[in-house]
Amino acid sequence: MATIARKKPQSKPAIRKRIREQKVALIQDQILEVAAELIAERGFKTVTSEDISAAMGFTKSIIYYYFENKNEILWRIFEKIDRTYSGSLEHALTAGGSPEKVLADIMRAHCTNVMTHKSWATIYNRDEHELGEAQRKIVSANKRKYNKQVEEVYKSGVAAGKLKPGSPTVAVACMLGACNWTYTWFKPTGPLSAQEIADRFATQLIDGVRA
Amino acid sequence: MATIARKKPQSKPAIRKRIREQKVALIQDQILEVAAELIAERGFKTVTSEDISAAMGFTKSIIYYYFENKNEILWRIFEKIDRTYSGSLEHALTAGGSPEKVLADIMRAHCTNVMTHKSWATIYNRDEHELGEAQRKIVSANKRKYNKQVEEVYKSGVAAGKLKPGSPTVAVACMLGACNWTYTWFKPTGPLSAQEIADRFATQLIDGVRA
Repeated sequence: MATIARKKPQSKPAIRKRIREQKVALIQDQILEVAAELIAERGFKTVTSEDISAAMGFTKSIIYYYFENKNEILWRIFEKIDRTYSGSLEHALTAGGSPEKVLADIMRAHCTNVMTHKSWATIYNRDEHELGEAQRKIVSANKRKYNKQVEEVYKSGVAAGKLKPGSPTVAVACMLGACNWTYTWFKPTGPLSAQEIADRFATQLIDGVRA
Repeated sequence: MATIARKKPQSKPAIRKRIREQKVALIQDQILEVAAELIAERGFKTVTSEDISAAMGFTKSIIYYYFENKNEILWRIFEKIDRTYSGSLEHALTAGGSPEKVLADIMRAHCTNVMTHKSWATIYNRDEHELGEAQRKIVSANKRKYNKQVEEVYKSGVAAGKLKPGSPTVAVACMLGACNWTYTWFKPTGPLSAQEIADRFATQLIDGVRA
């Protein structure tokens, strides 16, 4: 009779630990989401931990149980933004295709990220100076890495004769700038969805750099 | 003997009055320039009238001799920005040419204005909420008028079969957004001048909307 290999069951304390960790991560994530909305709307200095707790329906501050201080909250928001944008970029690079197709995918995803998280864009562009020096250095390094990766795609398009030669830095800055600016005017209740605008932007921006 | 028509000479008090008015306008303009730099760098709430005086080399505040209060300074900065941008737009419209040429001229001028007055761009995009309600309404109306004028040029390009049909609002928002974003990264000490970047942007942005 064949024996079926079975996974060794986890001990009860290990399960409880895992559940607790997941619960903490879930609450931290909720706090970051609420905090981002409030900070974007009222400014980092103005928002208190009590404001964030109140917006989540708690009568007293639960924030300091989950985060060390307000700086940690801001930093974790920046980390989340960087992770989301670089994740989308990696996704477009992995999906592959011609350089123009990859570049269009990147613009579409970048644009969509800006419009679907307007509060993030506000914070990222306005509140970087509220971070510590070491944190600001990481943000700058991530930004440089992101831009460089997009410029590499652009360069491969130039090498393939499909995209205009010239400064990839300026060409990419023009394209990403158009996407970044959407957070100042996009309205989720407007006539076009974020996806529709992102599609049109991607087409327009890529057509602008075709050889 | 022929008589030569002569202008009636102005009275001495009238000349003195005109000189005084010009002097006041000159000093007000200097104050607005210094104030814009300081406000952009440190934030509207942080900057005091003493800071502005000190930056101009005066030991005590001369500001309230020339302006009613800090709000008037901010409002006059906004007025100056609106006047500069709409002036450039009018200039491009008056120069005329094909819709693509006019649109390219507009983008070049818009881009150049953003990069040569980075402090203005910072204030315009960040500090509008510091204005009074009536002032904010005027700013919004000016913004709408400006965008509408650019969209009209775009529409005439579509009618002439030279520009892509579709939403002129989205197409123009994409183009102006790319120009607006330059204030976040342009460095006057960088490898390319504002003029060179503006030229490349204009070409890239117009190529993106050609039919």
